[in-house]
Amino acid sequence: MPPGAASETLHTVISHLRTQQQSLLEALHEILSIPSVSMDPAHTADMTTAAQWLADYLRRIGMDHTAIIAADGHPIVISEWLGAGNTAPTLLIYGHYDVQPADPADAWHTPPFVPTVRNNAMYARGASDDKGQLMAAIAALEAWLHVTGGLPVNVRLIIEGEEETSSVALRRFVRTQPERLQCDAVMIIDSTMLTPQQPLILYGTRGNCYLEVTVRGPAGDLHSGTFGGAVENPFNVLVRLLAALQDGVTRRVRVPGFYDRVRAVDDTERRLLASLPLDDAALLRMTGAPALAGEAGFSAIERASIRPTLDIHGIGGGFTGPGKKTVIPAQATAKISMRLVPYQAPHEIAQLVTRFLHEQAPPTVTLDVQVLSASHPVLIDYRAEAVQAASRAFEAAFGAPAAFTIGGGTLPVAADLQEALRAPLVITGFGLPDDNMHAPNEKLNLDCFARGCEMIAHYLALLAASSRAQPSAP
Amino acid sequence: MPPGAASETLHTVISHLRTQQQSLLEALHEILSIPSVSMDPAHTADMTTAAQWLADYLRRIGMDHTAIIAADGHPIVISEWLGAGNTAPTLLIYGHYDVQPADPADAWHTPPFVPTVRNNAMYARGASDDKGQLMAAIAALEAWLHVTGGLPVNVRLIIEGEEETSSVALRRFVRTQPERLQCDAVMIIDSTMLTPQQPLILYGTRGNCYLEVTVRGPAGDLHSGTFGGAVENPFNVLVRLLAALQDGVTRRVRVPGFYDRVRAVDDTERRLLASLPLDDAALLRMTGAPALAGEAGFSAIERASIRPTLDIHGIGGGFTGPGKKTVIPAQATAKISMRLVPYQAPHEIAQLVTRFLHEQAPPTVTLDVQVLSASHPVLIDYRAEAVQAASRAFEAAFGAPAAFTIGGGTLPVAADLQEALRAPLVITGFGLPDDNMHAPNEKLNLDCFARGCEMIAHYLALLAASSRAQPSAP
Repeated sequence: MPPGAASETLHTVISHLRTQQQSLLEALHEILSIPSVSMDPAHTADMTTAAQWLADYLRRIGMDHTAIIAADGHPIVISEWLGAGNTAPTLLIYGHYDVQPADPADAWHTPPFVPTVRNNAMYARGASDDKGQLMAAIAALEAWLHVTGGLPVNVRLIIEGEEETSSVALRRFVRTQPERLQCDAVMIIDSTMLTPQQPLILYGTRGNCYLEVTVRGPAGDLHSGTFGGAVENPFNVLVRLLAALQDGVTRRVRVPGFYDRVRAVDDTERRLLASLPLDDAALLRMTGAPALAGEAGFSAIERASIRPTLDIHGIGGGFTGPGKKTVIPAQATAKISMRLVPYQAPHEIAQLVTRFLHEQAPPTVTLDVQVLSASHPVLIDYRAEAVQAASRAFEAAFGAPAAFTIGGGTLPVAADLQEALRAPLVITGFGLPDDNMHAPNEKLNLDCFARGCEMIAHYLALLAASSRAQPSAP
Repeated sequence: MPPGAASETLHTVISHLRTQQQSLLEALHEILSIPSVSMDPAHTADMTTAAQWLADYLRRIGMDHTAIIAADGHPIVISEWLGAGNTAPTLLIYGHYDVQPADPADAWHTPPFVPTVRNNAMYARGASDDKGQLMAAIAALEAWLHVTGGLPVNVRLIIEGEEETSSVALRRFVRTQPERLQCDAVMIIDSTMLTPQQPLILYGTRGNCYLEVTVRGPAGDLHSGTFGGAVENPFNVLVRLLAALQDGVTRRVRVPGFYDRVRAVDDTERRLLASLPLDDAALLRMTGAPALAGEAGFSAIERASIRPTLDIHGIGGGFTGPGKKTVIPAQATAKISMRLVPYQAPHEIAQLVTRFLHEQAPPTVTLDVQVLSASHPVLIDYRAEAVQAASRAFEAAFGAPAAFTIGGGTLPVAADLQEALRAPLVITGFGLPDDNMHAPNEKLNLDCFARGCEMIAHYLALLAASSRAQPSAP
């Protein structure tokens, strides 16, 4: 196809996407209405419903082959269109249909699974993370298939239902059946832009090590009057253990060995991060925090990208109701996680922290540390053609090329995809930092959605063009 | 009445109590079935029902005058029989009809408000604290009134519904209308024995200072991947603040001034406490703790009586459900309390701790400290005749005189009664340390109940006798 014809076809595809926005939002409304909360066993049936909805949709838009893989876990949806031929590159697009729990339910202004449009955004659990972003990609495929009866490159789609619970099934699938995912580039669509005008591509992501720390004392809850002072209070011990994990002044994690594998970042990279159009004032505005805070010697952007962290998510086991109850709780359980940076190894970190906690714990209690998940960080060469083409696709759709950083969040499957497929990863997305992912009132900006559809449409064309220009696939 | 006749009358009263056990337990079953949880607004109507039940019961057994005082709070029941005349001593008996919340509900083997007898005990919330103990005293009055048509001494009863919520209404009543409670001795029946064979009288109680400490950070919950490291996590700050309150090695409270007013205890008193028939092995058995622990330099008994403590009761605000959620909670709230010893002042302690926490808190969060309650400790001269007579009454009913210690728990109203009435306090009771007060599966030992009834019957006779022997009232 001559360049002019290609350009004209692309124009038609983009026009089609623009006229189809309303029906695309209706489709998004449907999938957002399914409460596919992967970590809650009460929603197991909803997981199957969501997977089935996606498979039906992909079959309807003309993908060649679509299957639901009944994994030992929540189902995986796999879909492909390989009609571009052996010489054309193959792009693997990743997304997930599971969502975070919606609690606290009373903090939502509209119900989390009744998608509602207001202020040019769609509000629902999963609107941004990740159903809205995923549907933008599917919309681009739909437009190309509708307009041309095919796609500019071969495309595989892999959509999991366990991203919020560490991707156990998908990671097993990636490791054991990589041939079903063979590709020349992987696009992971599950991230945020900096602003509605400033796209972002991640040249890495932080890993994660999530632990549950339980301190047990007396056999049952005790009256703190009768027994206070005589026996150990598991909460008193637990707060000391947790406080010991991090220096109160420097905010550095105090576990020996924790920083041993942390990559030294050179001035070039620090300048790259400093050039991100995101300052402290913007972070304060986005978070509503009274002040920024974190590890001494690093900027807020650095602390949220190239530096590891430790966060306590909650502590259960005691009395937290209204009023007061004078109880020595029998046990106290903290949920904590550490974001890890290249080349920290999550299982090694879990061991170091577990050992440290056991060393700190007094013999007057029993301590139990469970690893709830361990995900590797990822580092990518952002000069790869598949990555740079994505930046150009953003420029075509949003008017600005992508900025680059390392993502603070964790994509558990990214490391497995990188290792199993040996293809460059493009980690990007159409969410926004204030989308309230993992929090009440999650939303998706409708402009980001519309332009996101177009960005993917452009990207398929750019990948095809770069493969023609450069016979060895990107 | 000649001594022989008095002894015979007493014998008849005791016999009556023994034959009436079944119907007394039925009455106890009735009052225990009323879920009078004072701190839960959902149970407001149950508070009135319980007060009314008691007033009806007291009228039925022949008390002269019984009234329900509609306090600004839960009602107070006041009842009196003053037929012994001006020259006879007057005993004021205190108890409470309110109970602790019953959560966690699923930890109860039988429902908390369906009283159930098994293993020679009655299981129900309030069985031991305090309805069962209170009903033992009322049973003794009933027996005397039934057998003799009167009581050996004048008796006033004051029964409140706010003991578990700091006795606000009763304390106001005591301070403003002490004339309605005029007496020569106060018996507070709301405590435990050491064992079913070893009675215990408290020559003091610890006070309490209960605080709610809230740390606020970001305006809403944040994703710990996106923002972890850049903004302060309120839980990370709160555990450091709480850990700073207490030395991890000596277990001493680190708040400056905290120990300034703590009474030095001489060797005589330490020997008295050491003579208590209660050793570390027994405490371990009672609590099921892996080991005892507490302030360096003091025995477990001392740490639970003459030394102050600090206990964390629970920490709310984060994610504690099943699975994992990677959230930076917008706020974290701890409930903590300190048991105070003579002559620590609870409001001063609240100020010292609040100031200390504010000094420790980083400027990156906002800190709020609320005083939920503040109760004074009490110290009593255990050589007073009214106290010693109680020990002899125990010997008559249980076969052993009372041991003496300072109670670890707090009786908020005790300090007010002592100050307003200037009469000796007898703080005692018929509960047991393993009665699960304030915990699931609270119970009342039925032998302690039966002998408790008899102890009060004996005590009334002994008070009358000692006043005859010694014309100036005890």
